[in-house]
Amino acid sequence: MSLLEDTIAAITPPDTAAKAEARAHQDRLTKPRGSLGVLEDLSVQLAGIAGESPPPMPEPAAVAVFAADHGVHAQGVTPWPQEVTGQMVANFLAGGAVVNAVAAQLGAIVVVVDVGVAGDVDAVPGLLDRKVRRGTADMTQQSAMTRAELVEAGHRCLLTGDMGIANTTASAALIAVLTGRDPAEVTGRGAGVDDETLARKAMVVRAAIVRHHPDPADPVSVLAAVGGLEHAGLAGFMLGAAALRVPVLLDGVIAGAAALVAAALAPNVVGYLVAGHLSTEPGARAALDQLGLRPLVDLDLRLGEGSGALLALPLVQTAVRVLRDVATFDGAGVTDKDG
Amino acid sequence: MSLLEDTIAAITPPDTAAKAEARAHQDRLTKPRGSLGVLEDLSVQLAGIAGESPPPMPEPAAVAVFAADHGVHAQGVTPWPQEVTGQMVANFLAGGAVVNAVAAQLGAIVVVVDVGVAGDVDAVPGLLDRKVRRGTADMTQQSAMTRAELVEAGHRCLLTGDMGIANTTASAALIAVLTGRDPAEVTGRGAGVDDETLARKAMVVRAAIVRHHPDPADPVSVLAAVGGLEHAGLAGFMLGAAALRVPVLLDGVIAGAAALVAAALAPNVVGYLVAGHLSTEPGARAALDQLGLRPLVDLDLRLGEGSGALLALPLVQTAVRVLRDVATFDGAGVTDKDG
Repeated sequence: MSLLEDTIAAITPPDTAAKAEARAHQDRLTKPRGSLGVLEDLSVQLAGIAGESPPPMPEPAAVAVFAADHGVHAQGVTPWPQEVTGQMVANFLAGGAVVNAVAAQLGAIVVVVDVGVAGDVDAVPGLLDRKVRRGTADMTQQSAMTRAELVEAGHRCLLTGDMGIANTTASAALIAVLTGRDPAEVTGRGAGVDDETLARKAMVVRAAIVRHHPDPADPVSVLAAVGGLEHAGLAGFMLGAAALRVPVLLDGVIAGAAALVAAALAPNVVGYLVAGHLSTEPGARAALDQLGLRPLVDLDLRLGEGSGALLALPLVQTAVRVLRDVATFDGAGVTDKDG
Repeated sequence: MSLLEDTIAAITPPDTAAKAEARAHQDRLTKPRGSLGVLEDLSVQLAGIAGESPPPMPEPAAVAVFAADHGVHAQGVTPWPQEVTGQMVANFLAGGAVVNAVAAQLGAIVVVVDVGVAGDVDAVPGLLDRKVRRGTADMTQQSAMTRAELVEAGHRCLLTGDMGIANTTASAALIAVLTGRDPAEVTGRGAGVDDETLARKAMVVRAAIVRHHPDPADPVSVLAAVGGLEHAGLAGFMLGAAALRVPVLLDGVIAGAAALVAAALAPNVVGYLVAGHLSTEPGARAALDQLGLRPLVDLDLRLGEGSGALLALPLVQTAVRVLRDVATFDGAGVTDKDG
């Protein structure tokens, strides 16, 4: 079997016994039952992922920023020049970007994965050189290695990030194909395009789909036809994390598109995913709806880089912390109305 | 003048020059303009509060849990016995409650303010004994002292918390009066009451309002008529923080009700408030709508104690961190599409 097939075969559903144990323990804690809402569900999900209750704290955490360029840039889908991808990668590695500040504040490390930046990227600490030029099948193998390295390095929580001028165009194409929605419904303004460019962008997405008519039942061919190298990398990253029973916090629309690919390859992967936030990009909502994931943060973000996934990290960590640390009614001598 | 009048007189609108400077600096950072959505607005708000850009990091942070009992408990508005208020205060002081775990995870200290717990509370570190039995006017003075102590202790970000069996009943009454909504619209299940108790609860709120017909133009009399001691304490806490130019993160429906009182006393206080989260309690939405505040987190929480305000703390801190630390287009050598 290939590494991709091996990885998919290794993904099992989250552990139901650990989930039931976590839910039962939540109900013993000194608070009204259910009063922590989504945080309670998160703690149960993480128990299922880890296969034990309480689950280990999801830390240390690492955000992997998959960076790549896009040929579709030539179609005028964005006002940003293509070299900004490489410039921003340099900014990440120098520690000056938003993802660096957010990760530093919230206690995560940043790893930049060059899966296809057009220009050369200097080999410096923090960079994983996984540049691939040829198609997505190899890509998936490469990225599976990336997640294995991060997990072996001790990271118990992985976050997705991305950088690539024109990557919301490829994301819209993937989402349209894999959700069956019209391109105009899932194509958005990305980093901020005007009305004319938005109309062109949706047209470009539609034309690509018409040309390739990718088969949604064959996700690797969909990736190869309309995806980006970072989508392939991110899909492999998610599959690999799930195989190793590590939770993955998704950033925005690029992660959502990649998650659709991963879920089409291995439906069980969805149990290992947490939607970090809801991007303003319309395709993000479409992807999360299809995956059945509820975003933890909704603050009109549309930056990418992993910024939205990072903002959800303290919420996920807190959910586990509560399950691990809070006293029970019995233990604290508090009267339980249902006790 | 009274301490209340002095405090109100000291509250000025946030600084518009600092806000403009923060907004202009956001636009120079290496990211598409506006792409951090609400986080950008938060950084601008905090610059206005501090009167400088970038503002100082909003840390260290303290959550003040105002605890009190409610005579309306006798009306059967909740299945929890009244002694649970005091038991939970003991749990807070022993470090075993949700607020302790969440605050520990997110880097805030917990201070419990006894403004009217029915039973005796042992004097231990972490407790501020501000027990008042007689009305809300004195109450406001007492609480104003509390916030001054916390700010003098170096806290640059204050969070509201609360504990008091039956306090969502008093909150519903305050919100109904101060927003002009029908009691049935703003009365909810609190910590989890059944349909019959919910109906009785709304009836109790309506009866209290009919009996006292408090005048919304006289917020202190509204507090005295239908509010709780913790509402009075929290309103004073907010006014005091605003007078000292310190941001206040609001927890749920109890904080929302208290904020309506504070805003009725001093409309400028609203510029110093950040809505931490949207409680499932219907009055919370009504209060935030009236105040014009957008909640940062919406995760179906209905616990209180300050848990929802705490979850917003890393978001607010990150907003400021980004403004302070991220490189500019010029500084990082990144091409600006609008540059």
